[in-house]
Formats: sequence, structure tokens, C-alpha cells
Amino acid sequence: MSLRYDIAIIGSGPAGLSAALNAKIRNKKFIVFGNKDISNKLMKAEKVSNYLGFYGKSGAEIRDEFANHLEVMDISITEEKVNNIYSMGEYFALAVNEKMYEATSIILATGVNSGKAFKGEEKFLGRGVGYCATCDAPLYKNKVVTIIAYHKKEEDEVNFIATVASKVYYLPMYKEKVEVDSVVEIIYDIPVEIVGDEKVSKLVVKNGELITDGIFILRDSISPGQLVPGLKMDENHVQVDRRMKTNLDGCFAAGDIVGVPYQYIKSAGEGNIAALSAIAYVDAQKRR
Amino acid sequence: MSLRYDIAIIGSGPAGLSAALNAKIRNKKFIVFGNKDISNKLMKAEKVSNYLGFYGKSGAEIRDEFANHLEVMDISITEEKVNNIYSMGEYFALAVNEKMYEATSIILATGVNSGKAFKGEEKFLGRGVGYCATCDAPLYKNKVVTIIAYHKKEEDEVNFIATVASKVYYLPMYKEKVEVDSVVEIIYDIPVEIVGDEKVSKLVVKNGELITDGIFILRDSISPGQLVPGLKMDENHVQVDRRMKTNLDGCFAAGDIVGVPYQYIKSAGEGNIAALSAIAYVDAQKRR
Repeated sequence: MSLRYDIAIIGSGPAGLSAALNAKIRNKKFIVFGNKDISNKLMKAEKVSNYLGFYGKSGAEIRDEFANHLEVMDISITEEKVNNIYSMGEYFALAVNEKMYEATSIILATGVNSGKAFKGEEKFLGRGVGYCATCDAPLYKNKVVTIIAYHKKEEDEVNFIATVASKVYYLPMYKEKVEVDSVVEIIYDIPVEIVGDEKVSKLVVKNGELITDGIFILRDSISPGQLVPGLKMDENHVQVDRRMKTNLDGCFAAGDIVGVPYQYIKSAGEGNIAALSAIAYVDAQKRR
Repeated sequence: MSLRYDIAIIGSGPAGLSAALNAKIRNKKFIVFGNKDISNKLMKAEKVSNYLGFYGKSGAEIRDEFANHLEVMDISITEEKVNNIYSMGEYFALAVNEKMYEATSIILATGVNSGKAFKGEEKFLGRGVGYCATCDAPLYKNKVVTIIAYHKKEEDEVNFIATVASKVYYLPMYKEKVEVDSVVEIIYDIPVEIVGDEKVSKLVVKNGELITDGIFILRDSISPGQLVPGLKMDENHVQVDRRMKTNLDGCFAAGDIVGVPYQYIKSAGEGNIAALSAIAYVDAQKRR
């Protein structure tokens, strides 16, 4: 049996980190999945004036203060990508590439998903469309795979798939220089629609089409409804009450993912509430 | 006609200050009523570990950072006590001692009211019970007045009333040394019940009773329902939705006043939301 955490926090922006501080102070066994850079959005913010107590600081400087705070409190960020979370009743199972984690409660703090789903994406999800190339690689042995990626860091995954598939088309959606194995065919084009019958058969791009058996879409974050099946949404946001509870017992959410305004201090405040709600939930479960 | 503010913020704790930052950034005409010490509660906090970005700081040190932030942004705190707020339809009228202020929207951020109402207090409110001695002083010329105060700073008000009333009983509810004019009779006792018929006739205390024409109760903050008539409460807290809107158009609330957890970053986050909601409300009013 795998180690069971009290709380799994998914996301390392202000909401996730604020939640982590409280989990630490209350001596809970917790894990934070995210990025040691903390938040891309924060890193790029020129100047933040409305985070009470910080003045004249850039986003990157505030990020450094956050990182120092984590270090002082001995909190680390696990740089793994959570692909799916399943509610198992008493706990949640988190699929993280080839591993599984368990947690009594979860806090979703993955921010807003800027990438809109492609036409046909939801229809063919699980029928040729996937979000974790490593997980599903065995299914595409000697087949044609197309990968759409929004981050340079996905290139390792592309190279790995190229060792399994017979052919890999790669559509990089980022500006950095693309460096992948020479067997990978790089396509500089815009995805338009995913087409198929029972399963995916091709990806239509702006200037043509690619015949393919599978399509992986590697976004910064996948949409919450896809991440946690059964999660109730309010348009693009996770529906929560004022205690940051979602419709699923033991599942909480905080930050941009639950709605506007998209502001750091709002997210940090909600992370605090979500953590205290999760702690109360975990304690109640233990008493049962 | 008095100057009309876009936003009046009542309270200078983390919720009120966070709201003020946003009002400033968005160029609104606003006023913050509160205390230059910012927050008594914060001042007394030994160490705060869960305000993301601040580590190893005492409450007083965080207070200083907040004060610096206000100074850098040229935001000042008006040290006047708001006694009542009336919704006038298009705007709110704020009774502040002998003055009146007007604001299109208000943000209530006065924290939690630790003092519970005395027995009889609500019944006799306006019929001998009041919260602003200065305002109502003319009514008590040559009469007997009893003042219950929770802060040493109220002593000035006590001395003023003593110049008007025929007799002043003073019940200090604080620990500091009491320094009032010798004509004031200091009573070291615990108030129990306010009694009367049409109007107040006496204050029952633990060890006796005081025959009196009027009773002033000078708390840190009066309860929100008394401050803003018609405001919908949820037990001891102001009822708000996730955008920090109360049941009264143009009236928002944030921080401890809207409910647990009583945490600084939660309050600051809510102040941010309340300010953006108030700004949207003010802008919509102007377009009408």
C-alpha cells in the first residue's frame, strides 16, 4: 500500500503555498505538487502593488520571498505532474505518471486553464486523445502519435515517445527553440480539430492534416473537470462554497481555479481557508 | 452638500487596508476609517507564520510593513469613529460624531465584535442607550449619565460628558489606570442588565444598581447590525456571497466580520475581492 497523505495540494501558486503553510503549522502529512519556480504568472508580473505588506516589489522578488518562506518552514515542492485524481470514497488516488499517490483530502490550486479545448478533444478523450504521453506510451507501440505541447520541458516526453511509436509529429506551441530527436517531425502549424470515427484518425491543422493514431495535448494544466472526474464546475471555474468546499467530500479548491478576481492575495487568502477546511475534514475522518 | 466618496472603508485591519490598496490603484475617491495602529489584534500577535511571504515576523513587524505600504501608496487612515451608516438608496450616509460623510459604496471591515450585547441593550437602543456620547450629549444636559467603556481612549469623551450632565458614573472595562475628572464617579463593577420602562431607568451591576437617565456603551466596534440598519446577519457574522456582497446594494464586507477563519491573509484576500466588487458597483452607478 502506498503512503497516504492527509492532504495533497495540487498547484504551487499563492493559493497552494498558502495552503501548505497551514498544513505544516497544523502538523499534517501533506505533499505539494507543482513547480519550484512557484508560478509562471507571478514570475512575469512586473510590479505587484496590492499584496498587502509588499510594496515596490516585482513578481519575481515576491516569488523569492515566497520561496524563502517555504525554505524557513521546511516545505518542499514535488515537481511531478498530476494527471488524474479519482475519488475512492475514503481517500483520493492521484495518478502521477507511472506512480500513484493517496491522500485523504485534496486541495486543487492549479490556476486558470488558459488553453481552451480543441474541437473534438473532449469527444475523443480516452479514445485516442490523452494528456499523459508517458502513461499511455505502451498503447502506441509502432503507431503514429501526434503531440501538441505548450512548454519546452515536454521535449523529454516527446523523445521518449519517439522510442516507442513508429512516427511522432510534434507541434510546439511555445516560442523557445525546439530541440528534439531528429526522428521527430516538427510541424509548425496551428491545431484546429480532432477528427475520427470510433477513435481518432487525424488532426486537422490550419494548413493541412496529419493522419495519426493518437494525440497527446501537453498543457500547463488540464482542466479541473478532466483532472477530477465528477467535480462540479461553474462554467470554467470549480464551484466552491465560502469554505472552499467543492461538491466532492474531501476535495477543496482555491485561487484562480475557483473564479475571479485573479489576484495573488485573494488566492493566498483562499488557500488559507481551504487548508483549514481540509484539516478539519481530515481530523473528522480520523475520529470516525 | 458634503463631499461624496466612491468608497468608504470602515476598519483598518488587513481587510480594510487590502481594500484601500485596490481603491487607490483604481483611482477611486475613498476614505478609510480606523486606527493608525492598524489593528490591536495584529499588534499583539507574537509571531505570524501563515501570511505567505512573511516569515519570522511578529505581528508588530507585519503591522509596520503594512504601515510602510500605506505610506508608499499615500493612503491615510481617518481616526474617527463611525457610529451609524444609513442606506439612502443612491448612497450611504455615515454618521461620524457630529459630522456626516457620504459614500456611494461601503466596505465593512470592522473585525469581530468581542463584546456581546448586554441584556436590555437592544431593547433600549435609542431610548436611553447610545454608542456615541458626544453626539447625544445635548439630550443629557443636567441628567444622570452612565458610561461603560472598553478603551482608555474614551476618557476624553467621559470628561466632555461630565461638563454637560449633572452626574456621570463611569465603568471602565479595561486594565489601564483610569484618569478622569474628579467629578466623574468611577464604578469598578460588571454591567449585568439595562432596565427601564418607556426609557432607561437604571443599570443593574453585579453588586448593586445605578439609577441613570442614559447609558453609553463605548466598545471597540459596535455590532454590524447596529452599525448598518437592515444588514442581514448570519448569527454573529455579516452574510456575504463569494464576491463579498451583503444583502444591501453597494454594501460589501470583508475579514473577520464575515466569518471564520480569523486569519490575516484570509482577511486581506477578502478585502481585495470586496474592493474590486465595490469598484465595479461604483462604476456601474456612474454609467446610469
